[in-house]
Amino acid sequence: MPSAEIVAVGSELLTPLKAETNSLWLTGELNSAGVDVLLKTVVGDDEARLEEALRDALKRSDIVVTTGGLGPTEDDITRPVAARAVDRELKYHEELEAELRERFKRWGREMPEINKRQAFVVEGAEILPNPNGSAVGMLLEFDRKLLVVLPGPPREMRPMYRDHVAERIKRLGGGTIAVRRLLRVSGMGESAVDEAIAPIYRSYADVETSILFTRAEVEVHLAARSNDPAAAEAILDELSERIAEKLGLAVISTNGESIEEIVGRMLSERGETLAVAESCTGGLIGMRLTEVPGSSRYFVEGAITYSNDAKKSALGVPEAVLSDHGAVSAETAEAMARGIRERANAFYGISVTGIAGPDGGSAEKPIGTVFIGYSDGVETHSVRFVFPGDRELVRWRSSQAALDYLRRRLLKGGRR
Amino acid sequence: MPSAEIVAVGSELLTPLKAETNSLWLTGELNSAGVDVLLKTVVGDDEARLEEALRDALKRSDIVVTTGGLGPTEDDITRPVAARAVDRELKYHEELEAELRERFKRWGREMPEINKRQAFVVEGAEILPNPNGSAVGMLLEFDRKLLVVLPGPPREMRPMYRDHVAERIKRLGGGTIAVRRLLRVSGMGESAVDEAIAPIYRSYADVETSILFTRAEVEVHLAARSNDPAAAEAILDELSERIAEKLGLAVISTNGESIEEIVGRMLSERGETLAVAESCTGGLIGMRLTEVPGSSRYFVEGAITYSNDAKKSALGVPEAVLSDHGAVSAETAEAMARGIRERANAFYGISVTGIAGPDGGSAEKPIGTVFIGYSDGVETHSVRFVFPGDRELVRWRSSQAALDYLRRRLLKGGRR
Repeated sequence: MPSAEIVAVGSELLTPLKAETNSLWLTGELNSAGVDVLLKTVVGDDEARLEEALRDALKRSDIVVTTGGLGPTEDDITRPVAARAVDRELKYHEELEAELRERFKRWGREMPEINKRQAFVVEGAEILPNPNGSAVGMLLEFDRKLLVVLPGPPREMRPMYRDHVAERIKRLGGGTIAVRRLLRVSGMGESAVDEAIAPIYRSYADVETSILFTRAEVEVHLAARSNDPAAAEAILDELSERIAEKLGLAVISTNGESIEEIVGRMLSERGETLAVAESCTGGLIGMRLTEVPGSSRYFVEGAITYSNDAKKSALGVPEAVLSDHGAVSAETAEAMARGIRERANAFYGISVTGIAGPDGGSAEKPIGTVFIGYSDGVETHSVRFVFPGDRELVRWRSSQAALDYLRRRLLKGGRR
Repeated sequence: MPSAEIVAVGSELLTPLKAETNSLWLTGELNSAGVDVLLKTVVGDDEARLEEALRDALKRSDIVVTTGGLGPTEDDITRPVAARAVDRELKYHEELEAELRERFKRWGREMPEINKRQAFVVEGAEILPNPNGSAVGMLLEFDRKLLVVLPGPPREMRPMYRDHVAERIKRLGGGTIAVRRLLRVSGMGESAVDEAIAPIYRSYADVETSILFTRAEVEVHLAARSNDPAAAEAILDELSERIAEKLGLAVISTNGESIEEIVGRMLSERGETLAVAESCTGGLIGMRLTEVPGSSRYFVEGAITYSNDAKKSALGVPEAVLSDHGAVSAETAEAMARGIRERANAFYGISVTGIAGPDGGSAEKPIGTVFIGYSDGVETHSVRFVFPGDRELVRWRSSQAALDYLRRRLLKGGRR
């Protein structure tokens, strides 16, 4: 299997502000062409270090992809340094300069003289056109190595790779491709998921399994490499089915669909509607539900009732419930769910009330205490959680718990 | 000025899933100690490549910091490879094994034999204790170089660096420190900001200025290096004051405070309250406002009125307004702002209604058309925007425009 390295060029990538992320996308592309990425380097506008990095990379690996440093200014050093690293000259291309002048003309501007630099290309390299910017890329095959020089901005880099590099890499990859699958899991921790499914995925030696915890759910990533895509798909079908069977209702989806999409699809299919009353999540559940285009079909209304007054006036939570049980209680959560359902004339009402912190906890109701309410006109009930983590995490987990409660309920048939 | 390189170890960092981010935090720490980061490498669990990366880094730079690869399993190779890269042996430390056994005992578990690996340390290296995990770090000074070996999890790595490494690095940095300042700007594009302030910041040769666009606002980062912190602060005070003067009301804060915090602080100080009615933002404004601890003091209620019915029943938007002007109109935005203000009995009401896409646009009201409504009991009005970008970006920009509208109004005195 061919190996690759990625060299990202740009001083902004050596500040505390900007993570290098082009390589993530490129790694996905290279992996699916059957190429392993074995090392990544981030270099600034430092000619000596970049030259050394390129020479070393070309010594160690079959494919070297660089991103960035192709602009017209003096800081943009990738072009001349790439030439030096492969012991070649830069060659001036008249047609590139003409194209550049043409491009600037279309923008109604004169081409600045410094842009002439972008008409120079490493001798013998193939020119990769850039419809989205002024910097062309380069591809050089030599000594059984492949050097690919791409611009930094993702909207220039990605189409250039897809249109002019991907095929070439696939041929090097010997026809091996990687097939991927993403399972989303809710209501279980990372290690509980791993413990449950490790005995299953360990028996699939050819599938790479990784388990990641994101703010509120667990992702199980599966990747199978094969030169027979249908066979790889079949293996992943089997493995994800076995995992889904083991984890049961905790599995949100086996095809990467988000919980917002799944809940939305189930509601759409049933022609049912939803309204949400939020206290500590402050609008987060509404925001998540409405991230999905077309959510207006089933999401009718939300109420962010942060104050007790709002809980009373907007949702009809009785004063006695608030004074006897407190705003963070099963009784209040249930009254909120009932209230928003009735006011919005929705099929389902869900609610969240809790203590996200950093203040407001007590011995009886510590920070992280959250009640999720559910009401469907036939029954109304609630669940209590105590979530660990800071304010942001408690809020995310609360929104997830509410969506997941509804999802599980819908899976079991919804209103009974 | 001393130079540093960061070497991140771990195969998960060579997948498409996980960006390397430890180095951002470390770069901030190193910079503020007067140390430049000149190169970063990400290596997998590959002994030969890691050894080469470490040897090269130690040749080129004064300080080399590694993160990750210190766990107890065979994949964790940093310990033995670091030893080889500096031509030393690993030395077994009985007291470390005893501590590990003690730690596992406290967790009510037997120490697995593989954890014994974590009791080995590079000969002559100082041991960096890890109160948050089982992997100790190492610090080795030799040939005027400094090699620092840290664990990967941020909650182990950061305190270890702060408590046992930072001081040492500061001494190497020769007393130079970097002072930073973050200005947030709203309602202007990245290039408009740059064009306006470049003539100012260019005259401060010792201040590094970088301008970043984040989802909905522009950040201006200033960094001054000096061995006289008071002088550096004074320079940044002067420069940020000049920038703030030039950009006027567009400057949200010169101390990194977010727009949610600024709006919240202004409302708190005045003892005024806010209610929000959201359509296309679906709860995003409420979510942002309630990210700030203590926001219950001024944020009383939000209504997510996604459907026309909800706009009528929850906010009292007249049927005639909706049918004559449409749900996305100045008239509806104003009726929403007025409606939520009255219902919540709040001092200010703000509202958003718009078309976030991908569907729903027309020639007259293309996708991205958004109306922000404002009502304070004396006056009610609205502003129209057409935002470029996809659904997510349109929603973020809408929420920002609403918060920014209120911010500017409060700066001018609020209700008149």
